[in-house]
Amino acid sequence: MVEGSEKKRRSRDPERTRERLLQAGYREMYRSGFQSASIDSILAATNVTKGALYYHFESKEALGYAIVDEVVAKLPRDRWFLPLQRSEDKDPINALIGVVQAIPTRPRDIKGGCPLVNLAQEMSPLDEQFRKRLQTIFHAWQEAIAMVLRRGQSQGTVRSDLVPDEAATFLIAMVEGYEVLAKNSQDVKVWKLGIRNIVGWLNSLRAPRPSRRREQRISNMHVVRQHQRFRLGRKR
Amino acid sequence: MVEGSEKKRRSRDPERTRERLLQAGYREMYRSGFQSASIDSILAATNVTKGALYYHFESKEALGYAIVDEVVAKLPRDRWFLPLQRSEDKDPINALIGVVQAIPTRPRDIKGGCPLVNLAQEMSPLDEQFRKRLQTIFHAWQEAIAMVLRRGQSQGTVRSDLVPDEAATFLIAMVEGYEVLAKNSQDVKVWKLGIRNIVGWLNSLRAPRPSRRREQRISNMHVVRQHQRFRLGRKR
Repeated sequence: MVEGSEKKRRSRDPERTRERLLQAGYREMYRSGFQSASIDSILAATNVTKGALYYHFESKEALGYAIVDEVVAKLPRDRWFLPLQRSEDKDPINALIGVVQAIPTRPRDIKGGCPLVNLAQEMSPLDEQFRKRLQTIFHAWQEAIAMVLRRGQSQGTVRSDLVPDEAATFLIAMVEGYEVLAKNSQDVKVWKLGIRNIVGWLNSLRAPRPSRRREQRISNMHVVRQHQRFRLGRKR
Repeated sequence: MVEGSEKKRRSRDPERTRERLLQAGYREMYRSGFQSASIDSILAATNVTKGALYYHFESKEALGYAIVDEVVAKLPRDRWFLPLQRSEDKDPINALIGVVQAIPTRPRDIKGGCPLVNLAQEMSPLDEQFRKRLQTIFHAWQEAIAMVLRRGQSQGTVRSDLVPDEAATFLIAMVEGYEVLAKNSQDVKVWKLGIRNIVGWLNSLRAPRPSRRREQRISNMHVVRQHQRFRLGRKR
């Protein structure tokens, strides 16, 4: 049992204290990485005592793991899974394009980069607990995309010769790759160009429209137009 | 002027000492990142005195910048620019495929990830000198790929509707994105799957062969096969 004012503060709203520590810890980790994150900065930002922090999280690692599971994991959930779920009545490729186009491109997002990539890059070779937790997030993200592509295949709107799991990983690799380049350039334009090219690639995953196929039987000129549907780097 | 044995060691072969410091510093930065890199570890690994290190590099930052300019910059040069230059008589897409397939996939490469991405992720938001130096490397890499694609366009082997600079950035984003995923999974298989999908994408950049176009005028069945040349995630 803990005595005095500290006990009071905790029992007043321990869940809220825990949540404030998670949020301040997340911001500190986003700014400095896990290894350089300062517990003192987190305490200063939350006005929580060290004792209270260690009541909720037994170590800096335990705080870090909870931040991954409860804060970082929310990012692909809020930006990908939920919008994709809500768009079940939409064309799957349009739904994916909508999600890619909604990725935040504020200067502060470009400056800090993707929190998931930052942590994966820093901690994967160093700490197996971090690595596995982050991998779980990548897997869930991949599965959310693959599910949409499978739905498109069964509806006939997505190319049937595509392997949904691999195409989903390809999409994630592209998104994360462009985030790395945008963070290095510290330039929103790099990210916007990335989105445009990713959208072009997504358009190339559409199944050929039956009406178009019929037209092709009539005129071969449509073949060339059909090719141009893969819009990567199409000239403006 | 420095007296005694230290002077002797320097004057014996200062260039070699400098090179050893760069190599040991690179390994230490690859292992721990720049911020956590330990000068003492670098000195222990090289058996060089602190005075000799600061004779060559006036600060830890100066050592870091020299490592970027002289060691990290070599990686895309050796793995991309030079092989692409040497393959000037080859089909450009085949040359790019060859380079992608030659990216090292030893477990230690997967474990540590790409040194360029690691440093860009860590240092771009923190230090403008690091950021610009790393950006110069990304730009040179992009230009080397774009040049090959432009050559292919002028030869008629690469699709004419593609913007070489953007396609080059797309390729780099994919390579770096898959490296991030492979580093997180610590699994060579993820990287090998990445290479296969990147190769499939590269194949999709080929201009339609004139002979094929002729065939299409004869039989429309070829249209479908032509589409399947975009091999991302093609079923095995």
